[in-house]
Amino acid sequence: MTRKRTERLIVTKVTAERVQRVPDELIVEEPMTIQLDGTVVSTTMRTPGNDYELAVGFCHTEGLLGGAPVKGVRYCATGAATDTEFNMVTVDTGGLAPTATPRLGVTSSSCGWCGSDQIDDMCERLAPMAAQPPMSLEMLASMPRRVAEVQELFAATGAVHAAAAFDGDGNVLLTREDVGRHNAVDKVIGAMLLAGQLPATGIGLFVSGRASVEMVHKAWAGGFGTLIAVSAPTSLAVQAARRANLVLAGFVRGDRFNVYAPERLAT
Amino acid sequence: MTRKRTERLIVTKVTAERVQRVPDELIVEEPMTIQLDGTVVSTTMRTPGNDYELAVGFCHTEGLLGGAPVKGVRYCATGAATDTEFNMVTVDTGGLAPTATPRLGVTSSSCGWCGSDQIDDMCERLAPMAAQPPMSLEMLASMPRRVAEVQELFAATGAVHAAAAFDGDGNVLLTREDVGRHNAVDKVIGAMLLAGQLPATGIGLFVSGRASVEMVHKAWAGGFGTLIAVSAPTSLAVQAARRANLVLAGFVRGDRFNVYAPERLAT
Repeated sequence: MTRKRTERLIVTKVTAERVQRVPDELIVEEPMTIQLDGTVVSTTMRTPGNDYELAVGFCHTEGLLGGAPVKGVRYCATGAATDTEFNMVTVDTGGLAPTATPRLGVTSSSCGWCGSDQIDDMCERLAPMAAQPPMSLEMLASMPRRVAEVQELFAATGAVHAAAAFDGDGNVLLTREDVGRHNAVDKVIGAMLLAGQLPATGIGLFVSGRASVEMVHKAWAGGFGTLIAVSAPTSLAVQAARRANLVLAGFVRGDRFNVYAPERLAT
Repeated sequence: MTRKRTERLIVTKVTAERVQRVPDELIVEEPMTIQLDGTVVSTTMRTPGNDYELAVGFCHTEGLLGGAPVKGVRYCATGAATDTEFNMVTVDTGGLAPTATPRLGVTSSSCGWCGSDQIDDMCERLAPMAAQPPMSLEMLASMPRRVAEVQELFAATGAVHAAAAFDGDGNVLLTREDVGRHNAVDKVIGAMLLAGQLPATGIGLFVSGRASVEMVHKAWAGGFGTLIAVSAPTSLAVQAARRANLVLAGFVRGDRFNVYAPERLAT
């Protein structure tokens, strides 16, 4: 039932030498609406595939499940089957999850919000993590290469983000790709939740782009002790990682990278 | 009153030769809540700076203004001045804008939504654009280099997106940088709206990342005839650009790029 994730189009390729029409493979993005116990909680532009994982991962990382077990996940199906029925996924906890409120409402009653408030909110919901065995620096440096080997959609389109879970020996346990960075992470975390593998103690999370505070938030919600990003973190992401007791590395390229959290690396 | 856009931290730099603590400059992200005539319409993680432009640009590109004039833009100020008052911006049309509804609600009554529905929605609101004078291919290829010369925050942090408006001679008219791709575009469009320069007839829009359907949507809402992206478009972005009669080029690198819309380039 998986819908296509790439699409072939004829495009015009312009180089200094010539202008020619050639076939090109593009990444697909389609809106997907996520419901939790019948309430719409989000609509995200995603690459089709692993939709159940995305829905469950989103509900978990956003704290919407509140620890409730996932009893079922299904596409919307109302008789007349159309393409769009695969663009709405319902996560069912039998009403055990707290009543979902759209995120837009969160800030409506106060005079603005700042990054520290956001981190305080996370701390209220997620305890700082226990120290986990440190991972080898050589292994961390090798992760982009290891994940690239299994990035099918990126190889085809050059336009898609990846997230991956890896163990302390540098084995890639699971990779997911999506047009949206957050979706790729939610798919990894959703897959692990559905497989009973959360919290991800002793497991690291790799992301192909930058580490914004939301990526740290999601890694923390999944219980990952380490987050490594190919590109830079934001300063708020670093603050959050230091509060979470999460190892955060960025600019992982070739044999070099930066460690942003903890503030001092025990070597 | 502009808050800082980068922050200096001590980080651990790991190379094959050594591990050392060094200062590093990181991009700042902070939540900003946007109100339209007193109703919260969005909270976005943004890099501080050009906040009024961001708020106005967002309201415009999302179709929330409905053509109403912007009578004022201000930070929330309720007496007790704190840091957070600069994280809420109110756009005022004197009640002339249509009543804003949170975007989450849009899809709640239907069984899913698909990309074509989304493009149909855009077409209902935005007419296809009139053909504009074609821009030279050599000039389009040069845009990443021209914009890079003025990307201050990218030079400092290596972690920020840029959007820029350029004219038919390749002059960069305006550049904005932000941790979020959409924010950078909204800042450019908001600045042009506040300067009375919309629709951007004959002007091109440059984005430093990929071209998702939302980027095409925003370019279209601003009346730009051309959108060029350093990275790839999605297939839905191409469909939307072809419907809009917008020239869409991607993978602009060195002296080569691909043109995705129109389907056939008049050369």
